[in-house]
Amino acid sequence: MSNATDCELCNAPGGDVVYQGTQFRVVLVDDAQYPGFCRVIWRDHVVEVTDLNELDRMLMMDVLWQVETVVRDVMQPKKINLASLGNVVPHLHWHIIPRYADDAHFPSPVWATAQRVTPQDAIEARRALLPALRDALALRLASYL
Amino acid sequence: MSNATDCELCNAPGGDVVYQGTQFRVVLVDDAQYPGFCRVIWRDHVVEVTDLNELDRMLMMDVLWQVETVVRDVMQPKKINLASLGNVVPHLHWHIIPRYADDAHFPSPVWATAQRVTPQDAIEARRALLPALRDALALRLASYL
Repeated sequence: MSNATDCELCNAPGGDVVYQGTQFRVVLVDDAQYPGFCRVIWRDHVVEVTDLNELDRMLMMDVLWQVETVVRDVMQPKKINLASLGNVVPHLHWHIIPRYADDAHFPSPVWATAQRVTPQDAIEARRALLPALRDALALRLASYL
Repeated sequence: MSNATDCELCNAPGGDVVYQGTQFRVVLVDDAQYPGFCRVIWRDHVVEVTDLNELDRMLMMDVLWQVETVVRDVMQPKKINLASLGNVVPHLHWHIIPRYADDAHFPSPVWATAQRVTPQDAIEARRALLPALRDALALRLASYL
């Protein structure tokens, strides 16, 4: 089961590809409110983490920790949010979201109702870090095949 | 850093404890809409997954996969949702949520606005599985210290 014809993540990158490996890719999500929002997307059309064999699972999670580490280092968030949901697109992928006290939903999850408008200068300051984030992710992930 | 005086998850179990290990516990969450909702809670007051050393991280994630496997087996959900958020309680814990097409928020995350009222007979049928879920989790987790 490596591809599903009607699956959005089988047919499109799902974001701005920062790293393309043989078994997974890492993308930057184009979300105006959340600069630095990344996804780790498994290549094959697998639904749940526990559908992976143990080695693949360890690989995927190791990638997640590398991405979390880089996002923490570069984006300096107040908190990291991690989630594997896939109710709409049941193709294994993880969300890595840097959160800040002034972001649109804090302290609620980003899927809840927005609580405020993030100050534009804060958004701009975070967006300014994206080139450094891309570079740091590419460097960190270069050790994977 | 093993305890924080004002932390809810340092001071209270955070749910109905199904398994208490030396480094983590697994609890059933009392959520009327989501029978089978579990949490894996790290014992020490650590904020992010990448604050754990590699062995502890592997242990925690292995527990998560054991819980996911049991929840899938017993609850037979349409999808599993996993998340580590901690914006309100920044003490490392994972949510494992069995999702169904007729649940209150599907296909949105459970933190979004509810889309419907789940039929009461569906909720009751899921609640009826909780004793089996408790037993299966206790059995599966008994191999951990």
